[in-house]
Amino acid sequence: MSDSAQAEKIAEKIIDGKAFAAGLRERVGAAVAKLNAEHGLTPGLAVVLVGEDPASQVYVRNKAKQTKEAGMASFEHRLPDTTSQEELLALVKQLNEDPSVHGILVQLPLPKQIDSAAVLDTIDPAKDVDGFHVINAGRLATGQDALVPCTPLGCLMLLKDRLGDLSGKHAVVLGRSNIVGKPMAQLLLGANCTVTIAHSRTKDLPAECRRADILVAAVGRPEMVRGDWIAPGATVIDVGINRIEGADGKNRLVGDVAFEEAVKVAGAITPVPGGVGPMTIACLLANTLTAACRAKGLPAPEL
Amino acid sequence: MSDSAQAEKIAEKIIDGKAFAAGLRERVGAAVAKLNAEHGLTPGLAVVLVGEDPASQVYVRNKAKQTKEAGMASFEHRLPDTTSQEELLALVKQLNEDPSVHGILVQLPLPKQIDSAAVLDTIDPAKDVDGFHVINAGRLATGQDALVPCTPLGCLMLLKDRLGDLSGKHAVVLGRSNIVGKPMAQLLLGANCTVTIAHSRTKDLPAECRRADILVAAVGRPEMVRGDWIAPGATVIDVGINRIEGADGKNRLVGDVAFEEAVKVAGAITPVPGGVGPMTIACLLANTLTAACRAKGLPAPEL
Ligand SMILES: NC(=O)c1ccc[n+]([C@@H]2O[C@H](COP(=O)([O-])OP(=O)(O)OC[C@H]3O[C@@H](n4cnc5c(N)ncnc54)[C@H](OP(=O)(O)O)[C@@H]3O)[C@@H](O)[C@H]2O)c1
Ligand SMILES: NC(=O)c1ccc[n+]([C@@H]2O[C@H](COP(=O)([O-])OP(=O)(O)OC[C@H]3O[C@@H](n4cnc5c(N)ncnc54)[C@H](OP(=O)(O)O)[C@@H]3O)[C@@H](O)[C@H]2O)c1
Repeated sequence: MSDSAQAEKIAEKIIDGKAFAAGLRERVGAAVAKLNAEHGLTPGLAVVLVGEDPASQVYVRNKAKQTKEAGMASFEHRLPDTTSQEELLALVKQLNEDPSVHGILVQLPLPKQIDSAAVLDTIDPAKDVDGFHVINAGRLATGQDALVPCTPLGCLMLLKDRLGDLSGKHAVVLGRSNIVGKPMAQLLLGANCTVTIAHSRTKDLPAECRRADILVAAVGRPEMVRGDWIAPGATVIDVGINRIEGADGKNRLVGDVAFEEAVKVAGAITPVPGGVGPMTIACLLANTLTAACRAKGLPAPEL
Repeated sequence: MSDSAQAEKIAEKIIDGKAFAAGLRERVGAAVAKLNAEHGLTPGLAVVLVGEDPASQVYVRNKAKQTKEAGMASFEHRLPDTTSQEELLALVKQLNEDPSVHGILVQLPLPKQIDSAAVLDTIDPAKDVDGFHVINAGRLATGQDALVPCTPLGCLMLLKDRLGDLSGKHAVVLGRSNIVGKPMAQLLLGANCTVTIAHSRTKDLPAECRRADILVAAVGRPEMVRGDWIAPGATVIDVGINRIEGADGKNRLVGDVAFEEAVKVAGAITPVPGGVGPMTIACLLANTLTAACRAKGLPAPEL
């Protein structure tokens, strides 16, 4: 194969999360415009940031920007890092009551005087667009309509876009956190995959992974998944975001999968950056739209 | 090997759920006596039966009998099958408020004028000893203290009793219902197994099963799992309860596993009847004890 043919083959394998997320945001925007025109409803997302964490400030800014671009109302609440738990709970309760707010996101991490779990469980489950409330976890686990955590929801969308029907596929989820691995496993089960969930106690991880038609890596270990862990033709979703020092001494982002090796074997793969990452905020907008529709008793649009 | 040596070898493989359940009920009884002596607390279980379903009547009678034998208070509420949803919800709310009631069980199935999900979700999650409330499903899914459905809890106890630490074992759960398969998978994951969940859309079920160190069958298909689906030495838990007509024209109970074939290959196996079945009510008593302890802010005893 010529070099250019090779490059083309590799390009075809890459799942472009950035492009898909842009398309999703557009579809959300179109649905918002329609909702507004037909029902006079503008979905609203409230983001609460406590303290000055620089990474959180960047996220919150991006969320607000993309919320407005989709035609939704964005409400930003910035509180000093001396905020008490009581004050934060009071704000959450006020947002729960506010009919113009359909989604509430409290940016994590929170300062240490605040019990994060108590705050998350105070959010009205119907407005819990992060999908972290115990009632949403229970609804997802029992196959009811839930608000689903954004990152695994984004992974599912990318998989369905690439593969169509997932029924009967053997999916292996590496990692079992409450925000990625476990809800990912539930979503894949809901899509009728046979699902294996693996973690730090799993024996012979490479062998487990090699059985996967769909491999989702969410472990937070730079390039842990090697090329020879992947079955030829498998679809690989790399959730990891790891900052490592490159040979040139500069920092760079890598995933949980050794991309250069993996792309040769896989049938399709998400890069890092530009794969799963951009899906998270796009799914937050989708969740806010869903929450707004449900609040009005309207069906959530297919996105 | 002599016939008697062979018979002895098979006997060793059988996981005697009836005996284990009897022991568990005794340990619950001892813990109840201690709780009573030290804290003046008598755990109470309220069972609500609507209508005249004969199988349900048998279950409810057994539950009440075993509850009393364990030294707990048993409250039986029998309502006519013309009961309205409102009346049933009113009773549940009254039991939620009653401090002498620590566990509430509404026997299913309910008559068709009643929305079962609405009834189950009205039970105070802290008293939901069946573990079917969405909040308990969410707590189990996210690794928090939950009240766990009785049948999978019983299976886990049998497994730990036979195998000790389950960490790193490959567990395959056949079936994904909300009352058995899914909570079973969560419990095994919590015990650090690598967990595969399989179902009617799974491809090559025999091959999936053959990879199991622990195989839990909860499909409701008589003797579906054959001897050659089982890895030599694997531990097999058969949740199935199927009534079939024997060669003699009489009805008999069989599990989801072809026992005669399986016992030759497996390292250990639950029979049907006498395996998982007796564990369910014993675990209901254990859950009631747990609920009573938590209601008083006491640690639940290890059973
Ligand atoms: N793209 C996005 O928007 C996005 C969103 C969230 C997270 N992430 C990234 O995704 C990754 C995972 O995030 P998370 O929050 O799920 O992480 P986490 O809470 O740290 O969970 C990591 C999981 O990986 C397992 N694990 C760790 N080391 C392992 C090993 N050597 N072998 C096998 N399993 C191992 C752990 O197993 P145990 O349970 O046994 O400890 C745990 O279940 C991180 O890189 C994070 O930055 C990206
Ligand atoms: N021992 C006890 O106390 C106790 C308690 C409860 C239940 N049980 C017994 O346990 C069994 C299961 O009960 P359940 O309530 O979980 O049943 P269920 O709600 O009917 O669920 C059965 C599960 O098995 C799967 N399944 C059905 N046919 C299959 C096939 N041919 N291949 C692979 N998977 C198949 C189904 O897959 P899909 O989801 O793809 O349809 C479903 O997930 C029954 O025999 C029941 O009587 C016993």
